[in-house]
Amino acid sequence: MPEPLLLETIAETKAWARAESRAGRSIGFVPTMGALHAGHRSLIERARQENDRVIVSIFVNPTQFGPNEDFRKYPRTLVADLKVCEQAGADAVFSPESKEMYLDDARTWVDVGGLTDTLCGLSRPGHFRGVCTVVAKLFNIVRPDRAYFGRKDAQQLRVIEAMNRDLNFGIEIVPCDIVRESDGLAMSSRNRYLTPEQRRQALCLSHALNRCRASIQAGHRDALKLIAEMTESIRQQPDAEIDYIQIVDADTLKDVERVEGTVLVALAVKIGTTRLIDNLRITVDPG
Amino acid sequence: MPEPLLLETIAETKAWARAESRAGRSIGFVPTMGALHAGHRSLIERARQENDRVIVSIFVNPTQFGPNEDFRKYPRTLVADLKVCEQAGADAVFSPESKEMYLDDARTWVDVGGLTDTLCGLSRPGHFRGVCTVVAKLFNIVRPDRAYFGRKDAQQLRVIEAMNRDLNFGIEIVPCDIVRESDGLAMSSRNRYLTPEQRRQALCLSHALNRCRASIQAGHRDALKLIAEMTESIRQQPDAEIDYIQIVDADTLKDVERVEGTVLVALAVKIGTTRLIDNLRITVDPG
Repeated sequence: MPEPLLLETIAETKAWARAESRAGRSIGFVPTMGALHAGHRSLIERARQENDRVIVSIFVNPTQFGPNEDFRKYPRTLVADLKVCEQAGADAVFSPESKEMYLDDARTWVDVGGLTDTLCGLSRPGHFRGVCTVVAKLFNIVRPDRAYFGRKDAQQLRVIEAMNRDLNFGIEIVPCDIVRESDGLAMSSRNRYLTPEQRRQALCLSHALNRCRASIQAGHRDALKLIAEMTESIRQQPDAEIDYIQIVDADTLKDVERVEGTVLVALAVKIGTTRLIDNLRITVDPG
Repeated sequence: MPEPLLLETIAETKAWARAESRAGRSIGFVPTMGALHAGHRSLIERARQENDRVIVSIFVNPTQFGPNEDFRKYPRTLVADLKVCEQAGADAVFSPESKEMYLDDARTWVDVGGLTDTLCGLSRPGHFRGVCTVVAKLFNIVRPDRAYFGRKDAQQLRVIEAMNRDLNFGIEIVPCDIVRESDGLAMSSRNRYLTPEQRRQALCLSHALNRCRASIQAGHRDALKLIAEMTESIRQQPDAEIDYIQIVDADTLKDVERVEGTVLVALAVKIGTTRLIDNLRITVDPG
């Protein structure tokens, strides 16, 4: 594969994207914060299959981090990231500086109500406002035909779907399945924060979800009981501190009492100081 | 002039606009709430001069009206409006139903902070959120090269400029001068609410601004004194009730103590139950 074109300014990225669109070529877009792993790679490869051109953005977006979160220490691995983009077949990488994306007096925000006052939105106030704002900016810069988001950030995916529809961006939002390590841990740029012992304990997330799936498949429907079962199993890890475990409607993200239709079993757990998330999307036939 | 193409759905408007863009033709866009007057006409004519294609939107946007405002009684005059669009040279008119623009579970909002907590933003909470949201939607639907806004809604213009820049729409926002009746009253769709007696009293807005301009040109710089002078002159009208009279920096919209650089002298006055706005943009050389 040839090296992807590295774009550092909004102007050159717009120029590249508009030229491709005007030439009648479809654009697939994969927005990321870098520190790319096999999950990101699967998004880029999917975009590669479905579009004439693929552009990846790499931008650690300051506005989606809270004051006590890991913005400063978030891994920046641009050289390795460019290699992943190249191997996965990206044509271009947009990697702007923070000051290119946010002018000093920037003051416009995009908010999606209703979907953001639950799950990660509760423990990360302002997070989705930052996500929606930067994604709206990126959508306007790139104007892709399709944009690819992983299901690991299930709430983010749902929020972006709502924003895309409500603001008439007209982009096809393509959800992509969670990619896992061979032992089940969901891929995450934050996994590299874990010590070997924490890495072992971090399996409690996917294990709890697997148990929950088995319980649902065995006919259990009571959300509180399923949550209690997951809570108990995670609490057995000494360094695990549960942020939330919820079972919500996959569309509205409202808590459900019983598992019916398509639900999202979602959890956030701190292992030491590292906050990890994972989820299970499952559809239950009525009756 | 041929009749403009009447577009009622988002899908057909997008299809029209994308086809024009793909063919390499520039698009000028004039967003309106209908009840078109000579001010709107001047926007359309300007767009006609500067673009290959001109599209006007006519949509009385419910989300920018407060609960006690005039959404229900706002004039709807589509047949006459289409005639104005035709005479001014518009190629297309996008006139959607409310349910086409806002789905029942719409929940995404665009907010511009800082510029909206003053002037009309204070007496019309939520107004600019509604304006920004609908304009962001319209920008995404039409994707114009240029969009035309009147200086009569000076705060709206400034807020849209900020949104356009911050969210990277990349549209050229073209400000257009206020168009006035021969006696000085600024054109407004709401002027038709006025009784003949109120119409006479409504001149107090432009008269006050003219006096203010004369005072500034005579060397007066003290904002509070200039405001007091305008307040006194408007209070002489029995049906006039002042909402605000402010002198603000034209860029930040912050109140100034002294007239320096480019300022906006802006006022909102109720004449009976009709709220009217007007403003004067004036630049003073330093020294």
